[in-house]
Amino acid sequence: MDTVSKINRLRDHMKEVGVDVALIPTSDCHNSEYAAPCFKLREYLSGFTGSAGTLIVGMDEAVLYTDGRYFIQAARELEGSGIELMKSGTDGVPKIRDYLKKVCPAGKTLYFDTSLFTAEKGLEMAEDHPGAGSVDLDIGQIWPERPALDFKPVFILGEQYSGMSISDKLTKIRAKMSDANADAHVLSSLDDIAWILNLRGNDIEYCPLFYSYLIILRDEAYLYANIDDDAIKDHLKGSGVTLCNYEDFFDDLDNSTIIGTGCRVLLDKKEISYRIYSSLDRIGAKMIFKSNPSKLMKAVKNPVEADNIRKAHIIDAIAMIKFEKWLHESIRDDIPLTELSVASKLSGLRSEAGSYVSDSFETICAFNDNAAIVHYSADADSDTVIRTPGILLVDSGGHYLEGTTDITRTYALFSDKNRPEWSDKFKHDYTLVAISMLRLMNCRFKKGTRGSALDAIARQPLWNAGLDFDHGTGHGVGYLLNVHEGPNRISFRSSGVSDDAVFEAGMVTSDEPGVYVEGRYGIRIENLILCVEDENNDFGSFLSFEPLTMVPLDLNAIDTSIMSDEDIKALNSYHEMVYETISPYLDINTGEYLRKATERIS
Amino acid sequence: MDTVSKINRLRDHMKEVGVDVALIPTSDCHNSEYAAPCFKLREYLSGFTGSAGTLIVGMDEAVLYTDGRYFIQAARELEGSGIELMKSGTDGVPKIRDYLKKVCPAGKTLYFDTSLFTAEKGLEMAEDHPGAGSVDLDIGQIWPERPALDFKPVFILGEQYSGMSISDKLTKIRAKMSDANADAHVLSSLDDIAWILNLRGNDIEYCPLFYSYLIILRDEAYLYANIDDDAIKDHLKGSGVTLCNYEDFFDDLDNSTIIGTGCRVLLDKKEISYRIYSSLDRIGAKMIFKSNPSKLMKAVKNPVEADNIRKAHIIDAIAMIKFEKWLHESIRDDIPLTELSVASKLSGLRSEAGSYVSDSFETICAFNDNAAIVHYSADADSDTVIRTPGILLVDSGGHYLEGTTDITRTYALFSDKNRPEWSDKFKHDYTLVAISMLRLMNCRFKKGTRGSALDAIARQPLWNAGLDFDHGTGHGVGYLLNVHEGPNRISFRSSGVSDDAVFEAGMVTSDEPGVYVEGRYGIRIENLILCVEDENNDFGSFLSFEPLTMVPLDLNAIDTSIMSDEDIKALNSYHEMVYETISPYLDINTGEYLRKATERIS
Repeated sequence: MDTVSKINRLRDHMKEVGVDVALIPTSDCHNSEYAAPCFKLREYLSGFTGSAGTLIVGMDEAVLYTDGRYFIQAARELEGSGIELMKSGTDGVPKIRDYLKKVCPAGKTLYFDTSLFTAEKGLEMAEDHPGAGSVDLDIGQIWPERPALDFKPVFILGEQYSGMSISDKLTKIRAKMSDANADAHVLSSLDDIAWILNLRGNDIEYCPLFYSYLIILRDEAYLYANIDDDAIKDHLKGSGVTLCNYEDFFDDLDNSTIIGTGCRVLLDKKEISYRIYSSLDRIGAKMIFKSNPSKLMKAVKNPVEADNIRKAHIIDAIAMIKFEKWLHESIRDDIPLTELSVASKLSGLRSEAGSYVSDSFETICAFNDNAAIVHYSADADSDTVIRTPGILLVDSGGHYLEGTTDITRTYALFSDKNRPEWSDKFKHDYTLVAISMLRLMNCRFKKGTRGSALDAIARQPLWNAGLDFDHGTGHGVGYLLNVHEGPNRISFRSSGVSDDAVFEAGMVTSDEPGVYVEGRYGIRIENLILCVEDENNDFGSFLSFEPLTMVPLDLNAIDTSIMSDEDIKALNSYHEMVYETISPYLDINTGEYLRKATERIS
Repeated sequence: MDTVSKINRLRDHMKEVGVDVALIPTSDCHNSEYAAPCFKLREYLSGFTGSAGTLIVGMDEAVLYTDGRYFIQAARELEGSGIELMKSGTDGVPKIRDYLKKVCPAGKTLYFDTSLFTAEKGLEMAEDHPGAGSVDLDIGQIWPERPALDFKPVFILGEQYSGMSISDKLTKIRAKMSDANADAHVLSSLDDIAWILNLRGNDIEYCPLFYSYLIILRDEAYLYANIDDDAIKDHLKGSGVTLCNYEDFFDDLDNSTIIGTGCRVLLDKKEISYRIYSSLDRIGAKMIFKSNPSKLMKAVKNPVEADNIRKAHIIDAIAMIKFEKWLHESIRDDIPLTELSVASKLSGLRSEAGSYVSDSFETICAFNDNAAIVHYSADADSDTVIRTPGILLVDSGGHYLEGTTDITRTYALFSDKNRPEWSDKFKHDYTLVAISMLRLMNCRFKKGTRGSALDAIARQPLWNAGLDFDHGTGHGVGYLLNVHEGPNRISFRSSGVSDDAVFEAGMVTSDEPGVYVEGRYGIRIENLILCVEDENNDFGSFLSFEPLTMVPLDLNAIDTSIMSDEDIKALNSYHEMVYETISPYLDINTGEYLRKATERIS
């Protein structure tokens, strides 16, 4: 069935139940960035496969909002669907809230699933559209092929990896509850729950999480999850955590089974759903809105986690360097390659590691102009043959028991002999991106600095050249959890945002500037960096970053004539560190490849 | 009478009227940064002369809060006073609000003058200390020598300077009132009122402002000010502004003379006093809290203002360059100089300009270790003789009809012959400060960037060397109004603050990094920069800065060995621009001095 027919079927059903406008987000009931297949209604209805977007369907018009990462991809995927693309944040495009007010004024009925919106958004919606969310759509009728929620096995992450027991984590959280004078704390964010309980699952592709809710009281805790494993039950019981069925969570809330009237509940209204808020409101609980204490705790990696993460990056670098050697040899030997075959090779190399769990997200392997689509992912239709001369961008990562990696490298697949006419411009842009990445990685800053205040260090070389990129410079990275995980991030656009976190030693963040030239190429270079303590002197306490990613940058794409001495020194130092750290783990041939790839430049 | 006796007299009076804790800020009734003498109770009682600080006097302890600019100065001035210095923002120092909760728990009576606190602060205080502000102190009893409020003459700033008529300004403000569905708008901020009415005064030293309140209705406006000048009355009348007595403002509020019950009043709770808020609350007005529309309007200079400001900086540069030539010749000829005599000479040179109004703040002329006190001002007691070898920091500015200047230069008063042993370290620090100032001045950035996101561009060279400075990098500058005037500022600490403004073309901001080495020297280099439109291309719309200040940096203090080629080029380009812009206005000897002072370095 094509998109036009699906939207028509939706409209028929909307008329049937008396809904004028349907608001369909990209989310599950846990405010997850990625969702299990049964939650992908937006993708099913619109045909847009990106990871972020909001579909709004009225009787006469249908629109899809998405952000800069997806403008090109969405335009392509929405072609012929009758759905208009709304480019969030660009001139002349109203905010979703304003658009909804326009198309769904008083008297019209708005549908939204209260479990798919955070309490914060739900409250806004209730203010703008009294009565919204009260009429339900029958999802089975608009999505007959909808799969069921599939609960995969859960496993224990030992303390040699997590570095802290459940009990210690609960003690720290209860101290924060006590500070806030809270009797209970309700969590629905899957990364928080997995981190607190030292458990991991596999319910969402690329995310070792399991669908669950958690209620923490002063002396007890209740986990709502579908786990049928005695070892895990013991693991939980030993820490005072009672296991309940996932499906019973809302009944227990609505019946005040665990949380009663007047109970003071700490929760994050940017995380829990409006449905949870509404249940607690109905039973007369007193809600205290605060960020989940575990959010900052898990962002600040403990020494055991930090040591493991360093190991994960060595394991990952071995796979990446083998991959790069294979890539260049295949190109040299004229072996046919496509985006998908290259991505598959890389995934295979990562999976050779004993502690490999899965890739940490779907590899972006994008050739030439495909790479200008920031979050492009190849499929059987779009899969492109890799030819020289050309540019290949590979953004990939792995989940290991030792932690999560995320790395982007861009390869200049040309030589002096088959030098394309645009190669000077490409080298210029590539070199500036490399300078940007290195400057941020090597910067030192005062304690108290937020990510928004650091972004300009990365962007300055690009801005000065009249270049920029339409995504954040850095995102926090979880430990075998989500590859995108706040509160730390690096984006000048976060300035003025309340959860623009202050950097702390122990936070892992990506450093990934880029330049995207539509129709030609995309460049992105991404390292993960660990925030560490630095000098403490008369001028204050400083922090800096330790590079975690240990993979060379493509020297074939570097134009030293636009680098300062300091930039050249920074690249050489990084390459020296990469060689010294990784070469002991490589066979002689791969080691020789790495030696050449990390040769000093001047 | 010494400070100890004054505090004792205050405590006697507090006991008499039943006050346990008295909170005495640095402010007038208009939330001005600087205040007329009659408002300087905090300075009178504590002996601390800095421009920012809060005195809190209880029966057993008295403390003075101030910020990083004043730590050294306050410590010196409070010596022997029995008043403890509280260094705001440093580890272990509670916030004022928390300190007050501790020393003035329920049951104790807190005194504060509701007209000296903003509505926002007053509401906080009322929440923490119910009933606070209800018991008054008799200021005459604790400050018998208090001067009266002295209303100086007001003058009209012609449209050749302001670039916009009162009527046009009122129309723009009324459009914003209409957007907010407001019937009235109450202003007490003196810079807003002066800007809107194209009037200037002289009620506060260094601030060409006049004490006043303004009420703007949809069709009328009421100015409360003590002005006895027919030309000004006509100027106001022609724009529909009725002149009332300053003293009648609160009576008119309390009696609903102009604003009645149910009237929707737009006001800024960070600007208007808690007393105004309380009056409007009492009469049943409906308050709409928003930033004064004029705040952003006056920050974004119109083309006439921008052209005038460029002229003001040429006039100011002529005075500064004459001053520098005089300074160096006086040093060479062994003419005795002190901080005060140097400051006085500079002020005299500025006042030679026909359009000079006054200095824009008290000149900071600080020799050697005095300059490490960030906002040092010399007085007869501290006035220091200037000797070589030594370092002199001069931070000064002028108000002209063409606008306001603010410039800091630091001079290395030593030669190769009398080179002090610390000169290498000084040159290193000075050069990094110069690099910082130049990098920010020359940066390009995306539209939408806030000041907090730009600060790292200036601080990075210092941070990387383990240096920093304890004040903002930049503040907005008014047009013949306040020399410190938001909403634009550049400070990484403003990240996450709601009024951290997005930069717009037309804003004038200072760029003033520094390094302060206690007991040795202070370095600050400050230019004013005008935000201007830059490239608009596939990667977006960019802004950049145009240098306004046209005065060389002291080349005698520069160490080129730590500068990149780009930094050297930036300094040479700036000096070339300075020479080309200013030399036509100079006599041959001064021109020759400037030629040498702006010689290319390599």
